[in-house]
Amino acid sequence: MKILIKNIKSLLGVHDTAPPLLSGKDMRNLPAIANAWLAIEDGIIADYGEMQDWPGISDWRELEVIDASGKYVLPTWCDSHTHIVYAGNRIGEFVDRIHGLSYEEIASRGGGILNSAQRLANASEEELFQSAWQRLDEIMSLGTGAVEIKSGYGLSTESELKMLRVIKQLSDQHPLTIQATFLGAHAYPKQFKENHQAYIDLLIHEMIPEVGKQKLASFIDVFCEKNYFSVEDTDRILEAGVKYGLVPKTHVNQFNAIGGVAISVKHHALSVDHLEVISEEDIVALKNSKTMPVALPGCSLFIKIPYTPARQIIDAGLPLALATDYNPGSTPSGNMNLVNSLACIQMNMTPEEVINASTINGAYAMALDSSHGTITIGKKASLIITKEIHTPAELMYSFGTNNIDRVLIWGGGGGGAGAKPSL
Amino acid sequence: MKILIKNIKSLLGVHDTAPPLLSGKDMRNLPAIANAWLAIEDGIIADYGEMQDWPGISDWRELEVIDASGKYVLPTWCDSHTHIVYAGNRIGEFVDRIHGLSYEEIASRGGGILNSAQRLANASEEELFQSAWQRLDEIMSLGTGAVEIKSGYGLSTESELKMLRVIKQLSDQHPLTIQATFLGAHAYPKQFKENHQAYIDLLIHEMIPEVGKQKLASFIDVFCEKNYFSVEDTDRILEAGVKYGLVPKTHVNQFNAIGGVAISVKHHALSVDHLEVISEEDIVALKNSKTMPVALPGCSLFIKIPYTPARQIIDAGLPLALATDYNPGSTPSGNMNLVNSLACIQMNMTPEEVINASTINGAYAMALDSSHGTITIGKKASLIITKEIHTPAELMYSFGTNNIDRVLIWGGGGGGAGAKPSL
Repeated sequence: MKILIKNIKSLLGVHDTAPPLLSGKDMRNLPAIANAWLAIEDGIIADYGEMQDWPGISDWRELEVIDASGKYVLPTWCDSHTHIVYAGNRIGEFVDRIHGLSYEEIASRGGGILNSAQRLANASEEELFQSAWQRLDEIMSLGTGAVEIKSGYGLSTESELKMLRVIKQLSDQHPLTIQATFLGAHAYPKQFKENHQAYIDLLIHEMIPEVGKQKLASFIDVFCEKNYFSVEDTDRILEAGVKYGLVPKTHVNQFNAIGGVAISVKHHALSVDHLEVISEEDIVALKNSKTMPVALPGCSLFIKIPYTPARQIIDAGLPLALATDYNPGSTPSGNMNLVNSLACIQMNMTPEEVINASTINGAYAMALDSSHGTITIGKKASLIITKEIHTPAELMYSFGTNNIDRVLIWGGGGGGAGAKPSL
Repeated sequence: MKILIKNIKSLLGVHDTAPPLLSGKDMRNLPAIANAWLAIEDGIIADYGEMQDWPGISDWRELEVIDASGKYVLPTWCDSHTHIVYAGNRIGEFVDRIHGLSYEEIASRGGGILNSAQRLANASEEELFQSAWQRLDEIMSLGTGAVEIKSGYGLSTESELKMLRVIKQLSDQHPLTIQATFLGAHAYPKQFKENHQAYIDLLIHEMIPEVGKQKLASFIDVFCEKNYFSVEDTDRILEAGVKYGLVPKTHVNQFNAIGGVAISVKHHALSVDHLEVISEEDIVALKNSKTMPVALPGCSLFIKIPYTPARQIIDAGLPLALATDYNPGSTPSGNMNLVNSLACIQMNMTPEEVINASTINGAYAMALDSSHGTITIGKKASLIITKEIHTPAELMYSFGTNNIDRVLIWGGGGGGAGAKPSL
């Protein structure tokens, strides 16, 4: 199957040779080709160029031609931080917060993550698979082409493995490219409330080895935060994960800067996520690392916590990625377009920085930089075709509007039509 | 043409006899019928009730039956404050703000409203009509069934009348119910920069009489604010408007509480809009009035100003309506669903208060309470059918998600399919 997209107003995010990520001032550059064409073969970007240099069509057999006059084409969003395998919802807690309870108060009452854990324990793999599939379809229609999904609502060996099996099944069957993260260290389950070390021992001696052996995840995550997992706990858990081939990606600095960044960097974390609170020491630690800072502005909006100081991070010469944090408690939204608007509006990121943060840097943050995040020959044809808009900045400017005309995943149509070639 | 909607999970906003508006604690009540049916005849709500009392179908001719199992049905959103007739966009200013300029600084540089005015002067009525039509189609697909549109990018007799003619034409032809507001007092045009009184004289002695005689608007609006129109200016302009049959609806307290509320109440304003800054005197003035306070949270999000203190207003026993403020400068979004989410998240309004604010109270704020805003026999069948959701609160909880399955306008389908019976 071949696809030709022609008369593209501008092809965005073009890198003949793609770097793994963009940092600091480089994030302001969004390499583009005006009045462009792009060819797809077997789901891979085969070639591209300016319309004036277009070689023409020599073989029309099985060729779909898309006219993108007035429209931009860019890589799909790479959402490197989600929790979209879950049972039920947490609408009740949402209403509780309206009535004045804080996110932390709800958690201390047994709501929050433990609420989701209880629901998940009672859900079948089939139910979890079906509801997550719908969420994947929705985010794909909103322009996401690759997504990371975490476990972490299991909190027992049995339930964590159940979640990871569901993620594996989704990854095998859904058109989106999916990466799995083991997040057993998301919270302490009720029965370990008085004995945190016993749960950490369970993580280290039972869950992590099992996840590693069954090859159910690429990454290991820890919620490093006061009242959750300390820096010392995080150190031990990441070390165990690395031993089993799991690459660290951590939750740090959501409410307090307690040293989670440094310990993550020590273990060569691929990303450190949240960072709503950040210290000078954190910036220094990140400067000497290959770790991607990841901001989650949808979470800041929904639970009214500070936005990650993107300018401080980028202006220090660091890279930054954007992700949704899609989960039933703190961020019940997987809309990367809204995330991108919030990044411009609330975090003073330029439109070019935002597009780079949500494509190339998002891909890096889940180890998909060799296949996603840029327009580069040989990468997957995972593409957004916008509606007719004036400039790329309009994607962020007209917040709450769907500016996407079509999503191509591996060269297929969005919404489930573009199955993986292996199917 | 008859339509029957059956098996409705719950019919929301049901008032056998509809009050004109809901205030204070009454806003917490969202009268509903679980497991309901609703019948539409000639675009009007003909009857409704519980499924167990459903009389059955006696005449199947020309009857469309919609099965709403698992879905909620409620009145469409009534967006009582927009500026959606405009030319071009203000993406450049959006990027300027990212680089650190304030909304007021941009205005003082000749950007802002004057930027839109210049573009509008050069646009044809046909261009304005076409671009506004697209915006109307978009907001209709997002659940809006009635909308107010303001002039105010003309700022000359010729251009203001041009805008109002376009609004009239849209009102005549588009399926949405549209109310027109004359907002000549939106800003001072360049040529009156040094002579504000001359522009006010032009408004009073030329524009208002002409708008009144040609019956091009129902309402008169003034941007009562420091550096725009003073309380005294507002007093004179509203008085002139009322003389020509125009009912006041004003922009007050966006940046400063200078007395705009009291002067609006004095002229029996139907609504006072913005109110991001509000004084005790303002609350008192509103208590002795039939004036609807209107909050515009999309504007607060986009230009980072405080959110209207909804709790203070409602807890004082006052009513409150929600609207988008859709305009190219401060709020380039017409998405009422996002407005509703923001009202819950940022203004601590309960889901029931939000639905009432965006339906019955929005209808009141544009004098459409006799035809819109509630499920009442005889009102227009302007209805939202949701997707299968768990509770009405999910509409606000899953922010950035489209929870609407179908929009019926006058009994027709959304997206332009439901033409007015008069066509």
